[in-house]
Amino acid sequence: MRFLDIIRAKRDGRVLSEAEIQAVVDAVTHNTVPDYQVAAWLMAVYLNGMTADERGHLVRAMLHSGHVLDFSHLSSRTVDKHSTGGIGDKVSICLAPAVAACGVAVPMIAGRGLGHTGGTLDKLEAIPGFEVRLDEHRFRSIVDAVGVVIAGQSAAIAPADKRLYALRDVTGTVESYPLIAASIMSKKLAEGLNGLVLDVKVGSGAFMKTRASANELASILVETGKAVGVSTTAFITDMNQPLGCAIGNANETQEALSVLHGTGPKDLVDITTILGGEMCVLGGVAADLEAGKDMITKAISSGAAITIMERMIEAQGGDPSVCDPGYAFPKAPITREIIAQRSGVISGFDNESFGWAMIDLGGGRRKVTDAIDYTVGIEVMRTVGEQVGAGDRLATVHARSDSGLDAVVESLERAIHIANEANTLPLVYGELR
Amino acid sequence: MRFLDIIRAKRDGRVLSEAEIQAVVDAVTHNTVPDYQVAAWLMAVYLNGMTADERGHLVRAMLHSGHVLDFSHLSSRTVDKHSTGGIGDKVSICLAPAVAACGVAVPMIAGRGLGHTGGTLDKLEAIPGFEVRLDEHRFRSIVDAVGVVIAGQSAAIAPADKRLYALRDVTGTVESYPLIAASIMSKKLAEGLNGLVLDVKVGSGAFMKTRASANELASILVETGKAVGVSTTAFITDMNQPLGCAIGNANETQEALSVLHGTGPKDLVDITTILGGEMCVLGGVAADLEAGKDMITKAISSGAAITIMERMIEAQGGDPSVCDPGYAFPKAPITREIIAQRSGVISGFDNESFGWAMIDLGGGRRKVTDAIDYTVGIEVMRTVGEQVGAGDRLATVHARSDSGLDAVVESLERAIHIANEANTLPLVYGELR
Repeated sequence: MRFLDIIRAKRDGRVLSEAEIQAVVDAVTHNTVPDYQVAAWLMAVYLNGMTADERGHLVRAMLHSGHVLDFSHLSSRTVDKHSTGGIGDKVSICLAPAVAACGVAVPMIAGRGLGHTGGTLDKLEAIPGFEVRLDEHRFRSIVDAVGVVIAGQSAAIAPADKRLYALRDVTGTVESYPLIAASIMSKKLAEGLNGLVLDVKVGSGAFMKTRASANELASILVETGKAVGVSTTAFITDMNQPLGCAIGNANETQEALSVLHGTGPKDLVDITTILGGEMCVLGGVAADLEAGKDMITKAISSGAAITIMERMIEAQGGDPSVCDPGYAFPKAPITREIIAQRSGVISGFDNESFGWAMIDLGGGRRKVTDAIDYTVGIEVMRTVGEQVGAGDRLATVHARSDSGLDAVVESLERAIHIANEANTLPLVYGELR
Repeated sequence: MRFLDIIRAKRDGRVLSEAEIQAVVDAVTHNTVPDYQVAAWLMAVYLNGMTADERGHLVRAMLHSGHVLDFSHLSSRTVDKHSTGGIGDKVSICLAPAVAACGVAVPMIAGRGLGHTGGTLDKLEAIPGFEVRLDEHRFRSIVDAVGVVIAGQSAAIAPADKRLYALRDVTGTVESYPLIAASIMSKKLAEGLNGLVLDVKVGSGAFMKTRASANELASILVETGKAVGVSTTAFITDMNQPLGCAIGNANETQEALSVLHGTGPKDLVDITTILGGEMCVLGGVAADLEAGKDMITKAISSGAAITIMERMIEAQGGDPSVCDPGYAFPKAPITREIIAQRSGVISGFDNESFGWAMIDLGGGRRKVTDAIDYTVGIEVMRTVGEQVGAGDRLATVHARSDSGLDAVVESLERAIHIANEANTLPLVYGELR
């Protein structure tokens, strides 16, 4: 089977067979096809799309391009969550131990931040000693012992995705639903999951800007999960304002821990409870979402969740004392406040501006090799629909130096909109099973 | 201007500006963009097309990516012909000197054969000593002295096309009209032409299989020529049967010379007269096509054309005695005949089969580095609409060895169809100006 013929088939809008898609993934994995042919194929897929069958073939082939973990020896089921990413989204950090505390194993592979979105691994690395680079043996043994682990993707997981993802990034083929679905699902399902909960974010701070596009991606993701035999639920959730108050790295981990201490901000607690509740359902420990939400709430209030978090941090080489109620992560020395220029109601956020501000502060990456300052960050005190007076504090910036700080503060002032009236935003727009 | 943004623009169906297309061609020419990004852009162009303005920008940018010859010092105009290629198409070899004999300069850059189609340069190299690799100075000085030259493309001509063409070949983006037009026209127009006649072939032996596709390509080519300010005429001509009788290299050159001796086969003489007549019109020496055709006929019958051919061959280092009426090019030693298995009327040719048979005989190339045997070939004695009896000779094969010859003969027997009735085929289907 010649790669050129497969390019032509997709170019001409033909449906690729399982064997053809397997040949593409094999060639990509084993480097037997040059980048320029893969690039042409990716653009043809972008423009001509893929049927549900093709998407199923693609995700299966990519999933099996590397190691697939196996947790069938566990008595509990394995369930994970994936978020399409947003500003202040630290849910994984409190969610994973809370679900594990309910008796569902969570073997979570997470990522780093790039561009305007942060990454769970960067946030966790703010914990002194915490290791996210684990070999497969250690990854598995922590799941066995603690019931939860959060670590980076090993090179052995879905190698086809690594090459495809890097090429999509430089060939204008990122925003293709079949390719997004295959990328997300091949990595996640290689964790050896029984169930997966997806948090598809929509709004000014999300990859998906419209409800329609979020619904379409969510339905493709759910269908792809089912095609591989994994129970999959997607929630469409709001990303028109930051999730919680903290934006940064150490401060986001601090806020996630506050959820486990029972003192987290309401939106973050609610989303943790909903996504965790559904994970309990897919994990077979709760009969329905309401029962699952109750389990998460109790795992937090009983202290079971924070105890699991301590054990996970310890198992991953980190300092578990960050879980002490009085522990405070260090903050960058310079503080600046964002002040309301008028009275009114908070009507919206240019959410991406917060992500780019984080990069300017040194807490995010322009390129993958950039180092991160864990201590810088932004605290946002307001949510959409909230009444404010002129001169009220809207947010606080923690910076390492004064250099460039005025521009950051100005951009954040512009990014928080005040109007005469505005309604509060829902947290969840819908769910797909 | 980032290449990635230009990929995305074309991906999203936007019309590229002149500056964007110039940036693409600059990056391709100066190797400042990786192959995979060019590949993605090519596929986006293939699938989303280009407007007439975009095609004009592209051909102009590609044309000026290298040297553009200048013959403005000549008293005569410069006109060339380009054929989209077919079986037995040796027209350039007799056409160029005949047109030069009429007082129009013909600075012809020609190509080599690859796959099932032959190449003018290979056919000319059957002439002992004939050189097709000329530097620009010698190319120009032969045009100045003789009025005609036929040589290969120097590296300095349209370098952007070289890289794009190589990439199109391996990324499934060859069959795109805007890209075909830009490739053909950028190379041809770099010859510094005042006029160009295009022979767009349609049929079983041509790149274009349908009249509709040939018309579309022809109109894009004519429009692109005009966009660059060059008078351009396209003829849509038949390629459902070989042109002339000879298929090969030396035998095709022999047949082209027979046209100049006034003894060529009718179809080859006619097409030479028509294309040459139009070149005389565009070259400003004939008032209309009929007048131009008369000039070509007279240039042949007077011996002026063969004299120019002798001088061109001599100027290019070749042995002019091949132009002696009695000269015979050597033929490969083994002869096999294709015999009619039934009586009836010749109803059609699987024309490509003749091209593939030439490769099997050693007279064509599977890959660019293959060597060619100039002496092998096929003579086809019949045309569509001709009555034949069972046992009549249809064609003769001249081969170097018996190895594989039976299979070639069988394939040619299958490639010549005999039916109860069939009409003759027209030579020209239409013309566009």
